[in-house]
Amino acid sequence: MSATSIQLDPQGRLLHFLTVEGLTRRHLTDILDTAESLRGVAERRVKKLPTLHGKTVVNLFFEASTRTRTTFELAAKRLSADVLNLNIATSSAVKGESLLDTLRNIEAMQCDMFVVRHEQSGAAEFMARHVKPHIAVLNAGDGRHAHPTQAMLDVFTIRRHKPDFPHLRVAIVGDILHSRVARSLIHALNILGAGEIRVVAPRTLLPTQVETLGARVFHDPGQGLRDVDVVVMLRLQKERMERALLPSEQEFFQRYGLTEERLALARPDVIVMHPGPINRGVEIDSRVADGPRSVILEQVTNGIAVRMAIMSITLGNHARPAGGTV
Amino acid sequence: MSATSIQLDPQGRLLHFLTVEGLTRRHLTDILDTAESLRGVAERRVKKLPTLHGKTVVNLFFEASTRTRTTFELAAKRLSADVLNLNIATSSAVKGESLLDTLRNIEAMQCDMFVVRHEQSGAAEFMARHVKPHIAVLNAGDGRHAHPTQAMLDVFTIRRHKPDFPHLRVAIVGDILHSRVARSLIHALNILGAGEIRVVAPRTLLPTQVETLGARVFHDPGQGLRDVDVVVMLRLQKERMERALLPSEQEFFQRYGLTEERLALARPDVIVMHPGPINRGVEIDSRVADGPRSVILEQVTNGIAVRMAIMSITLGNHARPAGGTV
Amino acid sequence: MSATSIQLDPQGRLLHFLTVEGLTRRHLTDILDTAESLRGVAERRVKKLPTLHGKTVVNLFFEASTRTRTTFELAAKRLSADVLNLNIATSSAVKGESLLDTLRNIEAMQCDMFVVRHEQSGAAEFMARHVKPHIAVLNAGDGRHAHPTQAMLDVFTIRRHKPDFPHLRVAIVGDILHSRVARSLIHALNILGAGEIRVVAPRTLLPTQVETLGARVFHDPGQGLRDVDVVVMLRLQKERMERALLPSEQEFFQRYGLTEERLALARPDVIVMHPGPINRGVEIDSRVADGPRSVILEQVTNGIAVRMAIMSITLGNHARPAGGTV
Repeated sequence: MSATSIQLDPQGRLLHFLTVEGLTRRHLTDILDTAESLRGVAERRVKKLPTLHGKTVVNLFFEASTRTRTTFELAAKRLSADVLNLNIATSSAVKGESLLDTLRNIEAMQCDMFVVRHEQSGAAEFMARHVKPHIAVLNAGDGRHAHPTQAMLDVFTIRRHKPDFPHLRVAIVGDILHSRVARSLIHALNILGAGEIRVVAPRTLLPTQVETLGARVFHDPGQGLRDVDVVVMLRLQKERMERALLPSEQEFFQRYGLTEERLALARPDVIVMHPGPINRGVEIDSRVADGPRSVILEQVTNGIAVRMAIMSITLGNHARPAGGTV
Repeated sequence: MSATSIQLDPQGRLLHFLTVEGLTRRHLTDILDTAESLRGVAERRVKKLPTLHGKTVVNLFFEASTRTRTTFELAAKRLSADVLNLNIATSSAVKGESLLDTLRNIEAMQCDMFVVRHEQSGAAEFMARHVKPHIAVLNAGDGRHAHPTQAMLDVFTIRRHKPDFPHLRVAIVGDILHSRVARSLIHALNILGAGEIRVVAPRTLLPTQVETLGARVFHDPGQGLRDVDVVVMLRLQKERMERALLPSEQEFFQRYGLTEERLALARPDVIVMHPGPINRGVEIDSRVADGPRSVILEQVTNGIAVRMAIMSITLGNHARPAGGTV
Repeated sequence: MSATSIQLDPQGRLLHFLTVEGLTRRHLTDILDTAESLRGVAERRVKKLPTLHGKTVVNLFFEASTRTRTTFELAAKRLSADVLNLNIATSSAVKGESLLDTLRNIEAMQCDMFVVRHEQSGAAEFMARHVKPHIAVLNAGDGRHAHPTQAMLDVFTIRRHKPDFPHLRVAIVGDILHSRVARSLIHALNILGAGEIRVVAPRTLLPTQVETLGARVFHDPGQGLRDVDVVVMLRLQKERMERALLPSEQEFFQRYGLTEERLALARPDVIVMHPGPINRGVEIDSRVADGPRSVILEQVTNGIAVRMAIMSITLGNHARPAGGTV
């Protein structure tokens, strides 16, 4: 069974959220529609729903990320769950066996949901495979593999501005090779029937056979950005890159950084996105990041609603009787 | 617009709490009276009020302080808010720009209140100036500038023991130069019409023109403590002081440390205060700190009620329609 | 007054939980029966009780332990308490005096319960002795002295599988000398009238006069495990052991490690326990740890119910009028 199938019950309902790969348009649309209705909660005077009252959500972060952890924590608290934050130093050499021991122990504390971030691809899937049936696992980023809640908040943000997916042109710019964000986003856009998906990067920062994911390759942003509706800039993960791949930040900015001049090539109503945190002057110019076309902070806001939606849906499906055979 | 005016709405109501400087006696009395009514909550069997249910309070600490952070966390939880603790290492070089990025991101998570501690003077004001209108900012200490909630808990504690402010004599002793506590307290005492405010310190630990704050200067505690009603000892911030300012802790204790002998110069019903944590044998003798005149632990208790009051008042004023133009 | 008596009120009711030593069978049975009724809570859809709503529980950990701290945090949250986690680095040289200052300050924040872990024996007792009368202190492990909540979850787990204590044979295997778990468990088993308690260890890992605790000594596991109903393996605390006591982990495993072969000496329905986290291949073989006789993960689950019970009972007794003289 693949990561794709492990996350669905026999009726095809989401039990975990590990990857968008292999999900149907219906799965994604359900999440987006639920998130739309939850987005209003944060604007009410009392920003809480009782949905997960009495449930325990564990943030299991083997890779430090205050930012992502915080949005999951807020999403869980706004659904009235109890939240436990466990930051497990990767230094303590988490191998297959001890990852399982960690899992078994927290599971024994009768928690209901694990939000997992890990530097190794497949860690969240490993957990979903081994966890007791009543527990939902959400992937908050695993190695270079996937970051599916980020992809969902990205398409949620796009849909609010550009609902006409068949005619949508999206350019994803930067270090595609090391980016779990890019990988998950390309899958999500394809499932939702986006008209055209472009990746814009130097040859050294592209995975081999990236076209098989369903994206057109551009090396020159002068061409890649032309007439697009959406530009998604990726964060230059300095810590992940070997020196040889890239001469310098200055040169990267020179060739690929999103400036107002480059942005002028896109459609006038283009929106600019970034998973954050941004490197000003490296992949994006401040005038663009803070400019009228940027929806970067909207993405943060939407991220909470989208995570609330995914939490509600997956735990809700656990509560229902399976009603079928595996 | 100054820090003073940025914290008020057009009707003069508190929206933020950045500094006591420039506030009216009415503002301070409102806080003290509200704190008085909230002080009883902690003595009830159920120590919670629903005031901030559904609100999110973020403790944004750029400078580590378990103690202060804890009292804000408890204050928020006793008002039923959700609390998020973010300790942001100053090592990651928080400059103007990235402070703003941090602000914008947390703001986008639809939080309602920022409690900010920062080593740079003006950081909380900077945040209040840039934050969205629905968010309240509380200053939990900014550089050498201000620590207004500490000043309020100090005057709250004084008022409970010595309500007759016009006849009150207060001596603040120690490192006035580096103390945001002293600065805020002198302002608060002046606004509330305290009879006489004295600062007692060696020349090297006094700001220039300290008299303009409205305090009388004494270099000799033998004179400065005579007949006072309140002694406020300041913590010797060893880490903040350059060696040249002070020969040794022993010499400081010798010349300024609060001993029983020195305390005998004050009025018989004098109260002894300290913002904590105390350095026993440096600025205060244990017999005084633990003695019958000490109200140091009462200050801690009062700190929670005062912070609950300030949280309730500022967020309450945000909820009301402004009713005027800025 | 000893630790034993300090934890009881004049009517003999539990006010603190510092040690099982000196408690009556009735005290222990009350805890176990309450835990039994609370165990069901974790299996309900809403895993929360309002018992401690409005109370503040402080986890005061001077010794790092994510695992133990987490179970106390969950227990408190499932009883609807507010929880404050304070990890106080032992590096900041916590001496008698400053431990008292820490205590006084947190006490002044009007908390209701302190859960204390400290590397020094007697730390929790010290706190119980100095704390205000309305506060309950729970010992979460103090030096080599005691770990009473662990002992209670151990006997709870045993009772669920082997309720016939008079005919019970329990073997505790490993580093008895440095183990607060062993010490507390021996006391608990004796109080509950367990038929036979054995300690199995090399001479160097046994306290002097261990027999006076009421345990039979075995140096050879071939004899010590024969016909026992329960085997409790202790964690080899590598960090606590001086080199001279033990040649190597391999040799320890060779002589004392619990393998399937050794386990075959015990009764066929033996249960295998371990306080966790386990050192696979050091004190226990993975086939045993993960095998059908292991109840190690049940212990984790039971730990939450037992801690909920102890929290409810001690705070409940604080709420009642003492009704007698001290």
